[in-house]
Amino acid sequence: MTTYAVLGTGSVGQAIGGKLVTLGHEVAMGSRTAGNANAVAWAATAGDGAREGSFADAAAFGDVVVNATSGLGSLAALQAAGADNLAGKLLVDVANPLDFTGGFPPVLSVSNDDSLGEQIQRAFPDARVVKTLNTVTADVMVEPSRLPGRHTVFVSGDGVAAKEQVSRLLQSFGWPADDVIDLGDITTARGAEMYLALWVRLYGAVGSPYFNVSVVRGA
Amino acid sequence: MTTYAVLGTGSVGQAIGGKLVTLGHEVAMGSRTAGNANAVAWAATAGDGAREGSFADAAAFGDVVVNATSGLGSLAALQAAGADNLAGKLLVDVANPLDFTGGFPPVLSVSNDDSLGEQIQRAFPDARVVKTLNTVTADVMVEPSRLPGRHTVFVSGDGVAAKEQVSRLLQSFGWPADDVIDLGDITTARGAEMYLALWVRLYGAVGSPYFNVSVVRGA
Repeated sequence: MTTYAVLGTGSVGQAIGGKLVTLGHEVAMGSRTAGNANAVAWAATAGDGAREGSFADAAAFGDVVVNATSGLGSLAALQAAGADNLAGKLLVDVANPLDFTGGFPPVLSVSNDDSLGEQIQRAFPDARVVKTLNTVTADVMVEPSRLPGRHTVFVSGDGVAAKEQVSRLLQSFGWPADDVIDLGDITTARGAEMYLALWVRLYGAVGSPYFNVSVVRGA
Repeated sequence: MTTYAVLGTGSVGQAIGGKLVTLGHEVAMGSRTAGNANAVAWAATAGDGAREGSFADAAAFGDVVVNATSGLGSLAALQAAGADNLAGKLLVDVANPLDFTGGFPPVLSVSNDDSLGEQIQRAFPDARVVKTLNTVTADVMVEPSRLPGRHTVFVSGDGVAAKEQVSRLLQSFGWPADDVIDLGDITTARGAEMYLALWVRLYGAVGSPYFNVSVVRGA
């Protein structure tokens, strides 16, 4: 059993929070203000290990913090969570810096020579940031068997031990260890985030968010 | 038999040009100046259908034009080829706008709200631009069976007939029709190009350019 903060009350936060409770962990869902309707409803139904509060309440509670906020609001949410509540902790960043203000398709608010993952690591140097899971839809994050056969999830981060901890977490979600690819340090989050520009178009071509890519290697 | 211009004398141009000759097509490899050493050597060894010349010579020769130049030089190469030599023709753009001037990893010289594919289509409105094959290494472009099992190639372009023509070309290279995904109009080239930010990191993680992604769909 581990204590988790899941920051964000949307479909991603609910999916990850719910899975963590199912796996026997204690989870605090954080939002801008304690008593958020989505969070209260989630905490009432997700199971015994579920509770809710402000971003700071949740981050203070969790030994591991999951950033499941929308990418444009992630830095503000983490500031509200508080650097002291993040220091020394594993910070699993699953957010995408998608900016829909110009309509569909979205652009990335940061890309190419920087990434949200890097921005978070720079803003919170005492947190151990690992980017992962941002390349699949919420249901697939926590139940990879919704798609047939092998498919791939990526991890990016500066800390080897932090990435190993995330790999074990992903395995507990059902991702085979062989399907977790370590892209390298946190700057490789650029690749995982920029892939979203392809993801949004594949979403259109496939006609469903229930898809992923499998990395196929030569002999 | 179709006549092709392959603009660019690097590994991508040589792979595509060679494959086209093997398939019985007539191919002119174009470079900045006729008599380019790479192009002359290629034309001497690729087979009876191979010849070389300037960008304009090649583009005038080919009924189909393949842009296999480096992305940073593509617009200049196509200007040298001449708008008149491109008008009405299928222009298969396989280039990536990778800028290595700052070292590795490269950044994209255009991305997010624009793409090289779109720049080319805007600069040559009378050409029928289709982006494809830029997401795999040269050898895999023309011999997808170098990787085991199913894996995916993308097409982006404004013209349905042009994309169908490219799909048939890809099938002649060995790509099963079911593994060719039509992402949509030429703006979807952003997705295929921005994926390169992930590709360059996968190259590091896999330790070889012989990989690709397979799009796995849910039931």
